[in-house]
Amino acid sequence: MKILLPDTMPLSPALPEGWEPVVVDARAEIPAEHRDARALVVWGPSRRHLASAASSLPDLEMIQSLSAGIDAIEAAGFAPSVRIAAGAGLHSATVSEHALALILALVRRLPESAAAQERHEWSRELGGVQELHPADRITTLLGADVLIWGFGEIGQTLAPILRSLGATVRGVARSAGERSGFEVIAEADVAAALRGTDVLVNILPATAATRHAVDADVFAALPDRALFVNVGRGDTVDQEALRTALETGQIRAAAIDVTSPEPLPAEDPLWDAPHLLITPHGAGGRPVGADARIAENLAAHVAGRPLYAEAPRG
Amino acid sequence: MKILLPDTMPLSPALPEGWEPVVVDARAEIPAEHRDARALVVWGPSRRHLASAASSLPDLEMIQSLSAGIDAIEAAGFAPSVRIAAGAGLHSATVSEHALALILALVRRLPESAAAQERHEWSRELGGVQELHPADRITTLLGADVLIWGFGEIGQTLAPILRSLGATVRGVARSAGERSGFEVIAEADVAAALRGTDVLVNILPATAATRHAVDADVFAALPDRALFVNVGRGDTVDQEALRTALETGQIRAAAIDVTSPEPLPAEDPLWDAPHLLITPHGAGGRPVGADARIAENLAAHVAGRPLYAEAPRG
Repeated sequence: MKILLPDTMPLSPALPEGWEPVVVDARAEIPAEHRDARALVVWGPSRRHLASAASSLPDLEMIQSLSAGIDAIEAAGFAPSVRIAAGAGLHSATVSEHALALILALVRRLPESAAAQERHEWSRELGGVQELHPADRITTLLGADVLIWGFGEIGQTLAPILRSLGATVRGVARSAGERSGFEVIAEADVAAALRGTDVLVNILPATAATRHAVDADVFAALPDRALFVNVGRGDTVDQEALRTALETGQIRAAAIDVTSPEPLPAEDPLWDAPHLLITPHGAGGRPVGADARIAENLAAHVAGRPLYAEAPRG
Repeated sequence: MKILLPDTMPLSPALPEGWEPVVVDARAEIPAEHRDARALVVWGPSRRHLASAASSLPDLEMIQSLSAGIDAIEAAGFAPSVRIAAGAGLHSATVSEHALALILALVRRLPESAAAQERHEWSRELGGVQELHPADRITTLLGADVLIWGFGEIGQTLAPILRSLGATVRGVARSAGERSGFEVIAEADVAAALRGTDVLVNILPATAATRHAVDADVFAALPDRALFVNVGRGDTVDQEALRTALETGQIRAAAIDVTSPEPLPAEDPLWDAPHLLITPHGAGGRPVGADARIAENLAAHVAGRPLYAEAPRG
C-alpha cells in the first residue's frame, strides 16, 4: 500500500507493515503510476496537486495534512469517504512564537523606533523615563488584558507565555468554559469582552462561520488603545474595516501575518495602512513533529481508530 | 527625618515613624531648605541634580536608586559613608520583555518584513513553506542556543521565557555554577561558548571591568548566523566592532536598546549599520514595585540591616 509524501519537506515516518512511502511533487499532478495510493500527506500543495489528487486517486482512504488549516483540502472535492486529519499542533510552537513577536513588536513600538532610526533620531518619546501604564497606550504586557479569539492548540500554547509576561489572558471559543487553566468566553459574549481588551489576538480558522468574524463592529467595540494581531486566516477579518479602524484611530496598531487574498496584491491599499505591520504568512510554514504525526495517524487509520485531529466529513 | 522623592514618577511609599516624604524636582538642584534630608530616592535625575545632591546634603545616609544601573550615582561623588541601593529587580519584567521583543523581531525578521511591506511586496522568502532550521539562519527559538551575558535578575527573568519557547539557555557570570535552574559559565570561558551561540543577549552593567566586554573578538567568535541583542549598557559594547561585524556579515543581525553615548549623535554611522535595530533606551524606564522597595530599604536602613541590592562602597 502506498502513501504519497510531499517533496516540500524532508519526511521519513515509521510506517505500518506493508506500506510503502513514495515522494511526489507537491506542486504537480499526481503521476499516473501512483493512482493506487491509499494515503496522502499534504504539505504546501498547489491547487493543481490537490485537484489532481481529488480526481485521480480512487483508492484514497486518508489524507494527513501537515497544515493546521484544511480549508483548501476540504474545497478540493475529495470523496466524502476520504478521512482527513488536520495538522493540528504541528504549528503551535512556531505560530505562537510569531504571534508573540508581533504582539511585542506593537507593544514595544518597534516600527516607530525603526522610523526614528531612519531619521537618525533618538526619540525621547519612545525611551527614557516613562509611565508604566499611560492611559492611551499599551506599552507593556504587564497587567494587559489579552483576548485570544480561536482558542485551540496555538492559542493554548501562546496563553501561558503571555501570562508569564504579566498579562491577563482569556480565550474566545464557540462555548464558554475553561481550557488549560484559562477562562474561555463564548463567541456570543465577545462584544462585551472587547470593550476591556488591550490586545486582541485572532487565531481563527477559515470556515463559513468565521468569515469576517472580525469586522467593523469588533473594531468599534475595542478601546482606542487596543492592538490587533492576526495569525489565523485572512478571510476571518474584514480588511476594509481594519484599514478604516487604523486610519481613524479606532484602534492603535495592528500586525497581521495573513491577508485575503494571499499574496496581497501590490495595489491593495492595506499595504499603506498606518500603524500596520504585515508579514507574508511566515508564522508557521515548518511543521514540527510531522513524522511522528504521520506514523501515529496512519497506524490509527489502519487499526480503524479515530485519527488525531480528524475533521468531520460528510 | 526627610526622604526626598523624585517628581519623575508618582510615589507614595510607606515610611517608618518620624520620616517625612518631600517631592523634589529630579532635574534641578536640591532646594536649600532640604539640606537636612537623610535619604534620597533617585529616578531619572539630571547630572546637575546628582551633583547637587552629592555636594549639598551633609546628613545624607542612604540613596535608593530606582534604576538597575547605578553608575551615574557612583560617579557623582557622594561621601563613602552614604549607602547606595540599586533598583535591582524593579526593571526585570519590563527589560526582559523588551529583550524578548528585540530577540523575536530579529528571529522573525520583522524589519525585513517591514521593508518588503514598504515595497508592497509579498515576500516568498519571508513566508510560506520553509525549513525549520536552515543552516545559515535562526528563524525560531525552538532549539536555538541562547547565551545571556550578565545573568542577574533581568537575565533570570528572561531565561525561563526563552526556555518555554524551546531555546536552550545558558548564562555568563563572573563565576560558573547554576542559577535559577540555568547553567552559568564563567566569563573566562565565554570564548568557547560563543562558537555555538545562536543568540547572544547582553545584560551587562556598566563597570570598569565590563567596558567593551563585547568586542571584535566576541563578534569574531560568534557564528555568522548569530543574533546579538543589548539591553544592558552601551558602554559594554565596542560599537565600531559591532558595526563592522554587521557590515561584513560576521553576525546576521543585532538589536540594541542602549548606545554609547546616549543619545546617539545624529551623525553616528551606527544609525545606518545594516541589519541593526536601535530602540532609544526604552526597555525599562518605569520601575515596577518602587514604593515597596523604598519602604523595605528605608526600614532596613533605620534598623541597621543590609539593604536589598546594596552596592559595596569605599
